[in-house]
Amino acid sequence: MRILGIDPGLNITGFGIIDKIGCKLTYVSSGCIKTSSDNKLPPRLKLILDGLNHIILQHAPEHVAIEQVFVNINPKSTLLLGQARGVAISAAVLNNLEVSEYTALQIKQAVVGKGHARKEQVQEMVVRLLRLEGKPGIDASDALACAICHAHGGVGTLASIYHHLKNGRVV
Amino acid sequence: MRILGIDPGLNITGFGIIDKIGCKLTYVSSGCIKTSSDNKLPPRLKLILDGLNHIILQHAPEHVAIEQVFVNINPKSTLLLGQARGVAISAAVLNNLEVSEYTALQIKQAVVGKGHARKEQVQEMVVRLLRLEGKPGIDASDALACAICHAHGGVGTLASIYHHLKNGRVV
Repeated sequence: MRILGIDPGLNITGFGIIDKIGCKLTYVSSGCIKTSSDNKLPPRLKLILDGLNHIILQHAPEHVAIEQVFVNINPKSTLLLGQARGVAISAAVLNNLEVSEYTALQIKQAVVGKGHARKEQVQEMVVRLLRLEGKPGIDASDALACAICHAHGGVGTLASIYHHLKNGRVV
Repeated sequence: MRILGIDPGLNITGFGIIDKIGCKLTYVSSGCIKTSSDNKLPPRLKLILDGLNHIILQHAPEHVAIEQVFVNINPKSTLLLGQARGVAISAAVLNNLEVSEYTALQIKQAVVGKGHARKEQVQEMVVRLLRLEGKPGIDASDALACAICHAHGGVGTLASIYHHLKNGRVV
């Protein structure tokens, strides 16, 4: 199963694609789509939509996992974030892909084993779980973590992760 | 010029299409897309996306005007509304349509002549300006008002409206 994880945002939308074959997870691709606040909202949303659409057509994921964004304290930011997330879901459903949603807590629990892990810890575990040679950016790493969370059935228990690890190393 | 006005919402997304030929506005179509809160968010957003896409393909508008939604007091509602709005803009940009955004204040000023008009007043003026025989629903009426606001260049001055009216009647 190929999974596309998305960490939506108006300024930066992270994406990460992994393959799950049996219990093994393999890194496929990751990155982010950046939009400039110098532009108006509709062209910024179009950039996110076109970018994700391109990624879906290129990598043909079978499932999309998207982070359930935090409700921001600032209502204007919440509204903007909501719109970016709506566009990300549009890209998925346009390609008839099923979408699963996970909270940041679920994702962190699935990847780090605790719900209040720092982003750097998530990044570190993504590198180990996917046997990466370099560190993906924070946004791409969050998106990969979301895909990993889905691969583990979104259960988020340590047991579901550590069968990938033996003596602290990925096997 | 054919204009599609959209009043986005997760429960109900209103739409209204008008033609502007010279200074004359003509009603083309209007209605709303409803989604059930019994369903999950992604399929609800898909319904809005597919619905608007269908309307765009059917009526081939040349421009989209969308209401700049209010920032709700409840952050969860704001986030949901944002996502519905993101999907509505997705439908427009997917079809390479330019999107103009208008605040509720601009729309009410353009249609009723005052920024704090009630929805029923907007509905009444939409009926008069478009010479409708029946009243469209509130959501469709808001969407038509948004399209009318764009047709008037979004200026929202009484002068831009009342050249359509003579002695209080549409000419």
